[in-house]
Amino acid sequence: MEITSINQEKTQSNFLKTMFENLKVKFKDTKKIGEDDPRRILHSIKVGFALTLVSLFYYFRPLYDGFGQAGMWAILTVVVVFEFSVGGTISKSLNRGGATLLAGALGVGAEYLANLCGERGEPIVLGIFVFILAAVSTYTRFIPKVKRRYDYGVLIFILTFSLVAVSGARISEIMELAHQRLSTILIGGATCVLVSLCIYPVWAGLDLHDLIASNILQLSASLQGFSSEFGDVVSSKDSRDKPYLQIHKSVLNSKATEESLANFAWWEPSHGRFKLNHPWKLYLNVGGIVRQCACHIEILSGCITNSKIQVVSEFEQKIQPSCVKMSMECGKALKEVSTAMKNMSIPSSSVALHLINSKAAADELKNIMEKFSSSPNEADLQQIMPTLVVASILIDIIEFVEKIVVSVNELAEKAGFKQTQLLHRGIVKPVNNDDDDQLVIEIVEMKKPIGVRT
Amino acid sequence: MEITSINQEKTQSNFLKTMFENLKVKFKDTKKIGEDDPRRILHSIKVGFALTLVSLFYYFRPLYDGFGQAGMWAILTVVVVFEFSVGGTISKSLNRGGATLLAGALGVGAEYLANLCGERGEPIVLGIFVFILAAVSTYTRFIPKVKRRYDYGVLIFILTFSLVAVSGARISEIMELAHQRLSTILIGGATCVLVSLCIYPVWAGLDLHDLIASNILQLSASLQGFSSEFGDVVSSKDSRDKPYLQIHKSVLNSKATEESLANFAWWEPSHGRFKLNHPWKLYLNVGGIVRQCACHIEILSGCITNSKIQVVSEFEQKIQPSCVKMSMECGKALKEVSTAMKNMSIPSSSVALHLINSKAAADELKNIMEKFSSSPNEADLQQIMPTLVVASILIDIIEFVEKIVVSVNELAEKAGFKQTQLLHRGIVKPVNNDDDDQLVIEIVEMKKPIGVRT
Repeated sequence: MEITSINQEKTQSNFLKTMFENLKVKFKDTKKIGEDDPRRILHSIKVGFALTLVSLFYYFRPLYDGFGQAGMWAILTVVVVFEFSVGGTISKSLNRGGATLLAGALGVGAEYLANLCGERGEPIVLGIFVFILAAVSTYTRFIPKVKRRYDYGVLIFILTFSLVAVSGARISEIMELAHQRLSTILIGGATCVLVSLCIYPVWAGLDLHDLIASNILQLSASLQGFSSEFGDVVSSKDSRDKPYLQIHKSVLNSKATEESLANFAWWEPSHGRFKLNHPWKLYLNVGGIVRQCACHIEILSGCITNSKIQVVSEFEQKIQPSCVKMSMECGKALKEVSTAMKNMSIPSSSVALHLINSKAAADELKNIMEKFSSSPNEADLQQIMPTLVVASILIDIIEFVEKIVVSVNELAEKAGFKQTQLLHRGIVKPVNNDDDDQLVIEIVEMKKPIGVRT
Repeated sequence: MEITSINQEKTQSNFLKTMFENLKVKFKDTKKIGEDDPRRILHSIKVGFALTLVSLFYYFRPLYDGFGQAGMWAILTVVVVFEFSVGGTISKSLNRGGATLLAGALGVGAEYLANLCGERGEPIVLGIFVFILAAVSTYTRFIPKVKRRYDYGVLIFILTFSLVAVSGARISEIMELAHQRLSTILIGGATCVLVSLCIYPVWAGLDLHDLIASNILQLSASLQGFSSEFGDVVSSKDSRDKPYLQIHKSVLNSKATEESLANFAWWEPSHGRFKLNHPWKLYLNVGGIVRQCACHIEILSGCITNSKIQVVSEFEQKIQPSCVKMSMECGKALKEVSTAMKNMSIPSSSVALHLINSKAAADELKNIMEKFSSSPNEADLQQIMPTLVVASILIDIIEFVEKIVVSVNELAEKAGFKQTQLLHRGIVKPVNNDDDDQLVIEIVEMKKPIGVRT
């Protein structure tokens, strides 16, 4: 008997222990979400603050008894409209306000028309109106442009129209109700927008800008990681020790985030150095090219993960320095582009230098291949194939890096990024190559945003 | 004078013409949205129907005057809860119902506690409650699992709690209100779920299933397109005449859609041959591998777009048949997998045959390269590099196709897809190769879902 009860106690304490451990892990995970982005904690506090403000206003409604029951619409508005970014909040507030106004007016019209049809006809006519309007409006939500900008507005439009049309109230009553409803929505919406604007605002535009810059930086980190890999020929490390093989993965899937940020950014007023008509669409352009480049890096990363430790042939030893150079210089170019973007300045001329260097390395590689082909040799094609693929994809990557540079320059020009001072003059040395010397001088002297013309 | 007025008239008629043309284009675009997926039109009609039903119910509220003003909550529920798919509608309805119940109970508790603090303390205590609850709940919306399943529920939870807590009503009144609110939400939610279930239901699960199958089919079409390209060596066609170069693009960006469909599918009851605990997560697995494969196809497509008309070397002529074979057989394997998936059956053994054929082609390629390397030659590495890259990526693609087959087989097993009859026995001939003959026989005899073991 005693042993059983001791066992029972043990099982019980074990159960409590695992439960406690589980809770601890969950709590840690939850805490990490806030640590990863402290703005989330701030956002939660802001929502609580806005809601408390409006709630108390509603609680003391005897003071403002013009509003009455409609006061709850202010609370509803705050809960539904307050988004993480300023753009999101403004977009939803304006959508809600505009749609309520429009639908209210239409609803009054429908009510008036239905009234003309007599007591029997009224519900039928109203039913038809509600049906047609709801069906047509719901259909418009499938139009991409409407979905992007006015999805929430259409929802509120259907809602308000139905409520007004079937309220069965007299038109004078409806006017009174509309006045109440609109003022409370205004109070709710304005509270949200003000709180979201004035207390540590989160700008979707800035987030989009930073996301693209950081995606470019991630590609740069991958490429620089690869270059160390090519240098370290007989690498015995496990691929788990190579974090740069994974860096680009998040870039591959960032399309949805970029698009939603660009949509919200469109609604935001001028802030910091982002003007009202900042070219948000161009960010999506850059993002698209960055993703294509990430696709190439995915293949490179696959090549490296699959490569086995093997004897390195003479040919491979010869082309490895070029591969290291291409990868390193592309990485450096992207890093400079990312830094310039982060600082909202036009990428400096050293970006072009890095590109020229990487192209020089590509030319060198082609020379080596040419020499190798013309000299009598016994190349084991199968053995050198992986190296050739890596080389070829690196050459493709140069092209994409160039496209990224051009698209960022276009963005910098349209968005009026500031000119950088030519701090880098003479610091970055081109690969020693007679043909390129002249080019370098030309580019160091350029002071306008440069497409890379080589 | 007359000329001016004629000019004016012309400008005016031109303006009207362009406006009319614009409207016509817009109307066509809008019509196309419905033609692309007629379920969109049906959905719009269903929303209109559900809303009219509930509105008329509310309109005749004198008949049911237990509900009174709360009847508008039924309309609100319909507008907000009715989603395109059954899963979406059920998810939102349950979230709304559950959250209202929970928050209502908590709200009553808060009201009771606040009452104990006297008239002065009440608003302060209520304010603190609302603030804490709103802030904490908003924070939980950042937890990925909560965001995926209960985002809307948390929103409604905050909303209801605030409304109940600051209503300032006596507890008996609140109970009455809660009863009304819950019944109207029940009426609204039930109407939505019933309409969405009974009239041409759109199942998110089925959509997910079809999306993955069609993505696999798209990869297959790309690969089969490429194979014709490799065959047609000196291709003079413009890349605009090659639609298969673009097919895989949509696959690259389908992650967000897949995830949202999987979330909605989780809520759906058993339908057709999808059971309640259908392994939706495995679809995301398959989708991930399909996207990785699409990334490789993106690179292939780039190689083909960039290739110029050129003299084809002896070596290239030798390996081209292998490339055609690899690409064609991979394409066929994927097509069979996609068809099997579409029919919810276990991929037939001919898939394994196609894979074996493609691997045999890869081996053949390796042989050619070996022979080529050992015979004295003057290979122009630079010239044959693009072909080598294509060959190497095709070899990688075989690996991914194999992964897709394995993951679809796993899915087929877990989801209980039906066994196919061995219709294809003997139709697909393996590449004539002594080593493989034995393997073929072994696989034709297998009747269980097969991982491809070669």
